[in-house]
Amino acid sequence: MRDAAPDTARFLADLHELRRIGAFRTGVHRPTYTPDDMRSREWLMAKMREVGLEPEMDGIGNVIGRHKGPGRTLLAGSHIETQDEAGWLDGALGVVAALALAREGLPVDVIAFADEEGHYGDFLGSRSAIGLVTEAEMDAARHATHGKPLREALREAGLEGRPRLRLDPARYEGFLELHIEQGSQLEAAGMRSGPVTGIVGVRVWRIRALGQQDHTGGTTMAERKDAAVAAMRVLAAIDDQFPMLAGPRTTWTCGRIALTPNAPHVIAGEAEMIFQFRDLSEEVLDRLEERLRRIVQEVDRRDRCAVTLEPVSRAAAAPSAPAFHAAICRAAERHAPGAWAAMPSGAIHDAQWMARVMPAAMLFTPSIGGISHHWTEDTAAADLELSLRILHDAAREILAA
Amino acid sequence: MRDAAPDTARFLADLHELRRIGAFRTGVHRPTYTPDDMRSREWLMAKMREVGLEPEMDGIGNVIGRHKGPGRTLLAGSHIETQDEAGWLDGALGVVAALALAREGLPVDVIAFADEEGHYGDFLGSRSAIGLVTEAEMDAARHATHGKPLREALREAGLEGRPRLRLDPARYEGFLELHIEQGSQLEAAGMRSGPVTGIVGVRVWRIRALGQQDHTGGTTMAERKDAAVAAMRVLAAIDDQFPMLAGPRTTWTCGRIALTPNAPHVIAGEAEMIFQFRDLSEEVLDRLEERLRRIVQEVDRRDRCAVTLEPVSRAAAAPSAPAFHAAICRAAERHAPGAWAAMPSGAIHDAQWMARVMPAAMLFTPSIGGISHHWTEDTAAADLELSLRILHDAAREILAA
Repeated sequence: MRDAAPDTARFLADLHELRRIGAFRTGVHRPTYTPDDMRSREWLMAKMREVGLEPEMDGIGNVIGRHKGPGRTLLAGSHIETQDEAGWLDGALGVVAALALAREGLPVDVIAFADEEGHYGDFLGSRSAIGLVTEAEMDAARHATHGKPLREALREAGLEGRPRLRLDPARYEGFLELHIEQGSQLEAAGMRSGPVTGIVGVRVWRIRALGQQDHTGGTTMAERKDAAVAAMRVLAAIDDQFPMLAGPRTTWTCGRIALTPNAPHVIAGEAEMIFQFRDLSEEVLDRLEERLRRIVQEVDRRDRCAVTLEPVSRAAAAPSAPAFHAAICRAAERHAPGAWAAMPSGAIHDAQWMARVMPAAMLFTPSIGGISHHWTEDTAAADLELSLRILHDAAREILAA
Repeated sequence: MRDAAPDTARFLADLHELRRIGAFRTGVHRPTYTPDDMRSREWLMAKMREVGLEPEMDGIGNVIGRHKGPGRTLLAGSHIETQDEAGWLDGALGVVAALALAREGLPVDVIAFADEEGHYGDFLGSRSAIGLVTEAEMDAARHATHGKPLREALREAGLEGRPRLRLDPARYEGFLELHIEQGSQLEAAGMRSGPVTGIVGVRVWRIRALGQQDHTGGTTMAERKDAAVAAMRVLAAIDDQFPMLAGPRTTWTCGRIALTPNAPHVIAGEAEMIFQFRDLSEEVLDRLEERLRRIVQEVDRRDRCAVTLEPVSRAAAAPSAPAFHAAICRAAERHAPGAWAAMPSGAIHDAQWMARVMPAAMLFTPSIGGISHHWTEDTAAADLELSLRILHDAAREILAA
């Protein structure tokens, strides 16, 4: 093992080298399985070889570089493809930082999970690596916007027929993922680093109100069954009651409302809302779910519309492994005394899936202006360097334990 | 003048004859200026000649049949084109009933206003007939769905270059319009006829909330500017406060909500709602407008989103001419004692425009199941006959006064 200070210059140089593949303005455009995405995976494998790892790309595009020495290792990484015309650090940061750990001689397997950005599915790479993606799911998967089948994209990328990686939890002490914050909380608080307490659980619901489509002029208030009003009453009750039940970091959102027919002079016959809430505590999530059920039941009972609640998806909260999180916090305090703040991740990351089979933890580094999923996404070079120092320090402590 | 009992058999026969032009299942399909619509106008002109009127079609498709005798006359009618695949009585009833009045020898001008159904504009025929449609409006008017210019449609219909009718209020005692109810209030109350107290005023508004589009996971409740929440708070305040300010027949509706980007995992950056309220009393409408302004102002002030209110359109209430309405009520009581109920019209009709230049009143006849704008629209034959008897009786009384 070399000196305790990692080579931040090489780390930054690697990031800038990777940034040139699929460059778009100051960001990058490397959607999953496109030629530029595949070039970046090849680039990564070459880098892995260079730092002494044994690289391999699997049948879904996951790239892993295995440490050659004996004994247990740490798994570290993130993803390498991007959203369309997006930022240069989202995903790339965690992969290149993992590479830097390996370069320092730490027993680390470096991984770039495929399609974290969801072009073809829901965390296909990380879920596949822990056995959660069936062949049937792969047969059915299609590109979210243009509809190309996943199988076709894999064939074009030269991945058809390759076996898919299955991680062996017994090989690993655990998983570490460095990622940009994609929010502005660290920046707003004047903090330079954010050890992640865990990844929130998310419960997504479809709330539907069924009323009666009618002319807005001819139907009296006493007669009408206005689905928009029933939907609004559900949202108003949530707005009123959730603050008293929520934890300090709970979020809840209705991002989608669809009225039918959604015409100015027609009473809505149907309203559909997608509603979600997120928290690190399953207890808080359970409490909110119970209240949501009661609210929907109550509006259904009182209103002339039928109101129903249907689960759309549910992701369990993944608290960071306590020992890993503590090591990251100590490292943050050593390298940025008083300038770090532990925080939950409101967004889901590959680490949430790794947490199902091994101890896992994440570290956030600030995003300038909180911007992400846009080519203007950026992080100060000094913060990038700091994030590597903290990650390196924490990894050493975890491996030494 | 002939006997006081109008020829209901001929009246029904005329309605069924007209029904065959553009027949669609049990309804009709005669959109404005289509060949079937023009055939129905020609049919009407022939019928007008037959009952002794002098027919004329003007440059926007209005058909008027003028009484040949001297002195003042009553104007009566409605419209003859239909919504797509719609009912056989909506509009046609009022025109054919007016024809029946003329057949009885009453001094009546019969009119079929063009495009009441709004295929190319907003009450083009009746507004044109009182001088409210400029050449510039005609140049700009296009079909609501396929976008064909009004001028092109008029050329194809052979109406290009014809002068447009301008009604002379001095010629008329006033205007009478018989129409189907297009609602279920008469039917629900077991009533067979509905003298119309007036046509409600309508005020339509655009309410916009401007927030900040953000990821639903990364943005805390304290940071977010959720336009959907601001919009919902406006609607909730309306839902809470309007009942205490409204009249017994006031209606209010938000039929259209558009969130941007309207995606499940994105906090809405913008919300736009179209909101309207209707009442026969301008005083009630003023009261609701004032409250709406306060609600929007208050949400704008308290919420982190900017909320604005913008008028979209405003139609003044048109109470029926008291003497006409009284004559219709007396006739209803004579022909259907205890089985009629005076009611406002929640929908706008050509009569609202006529009311600007002459006394005007309407009579509703029940719609089976309240259905309209659909080919299954229908009214019992006995109710149709009754409606003609009441209209005829009222017209005689008005003309005798």
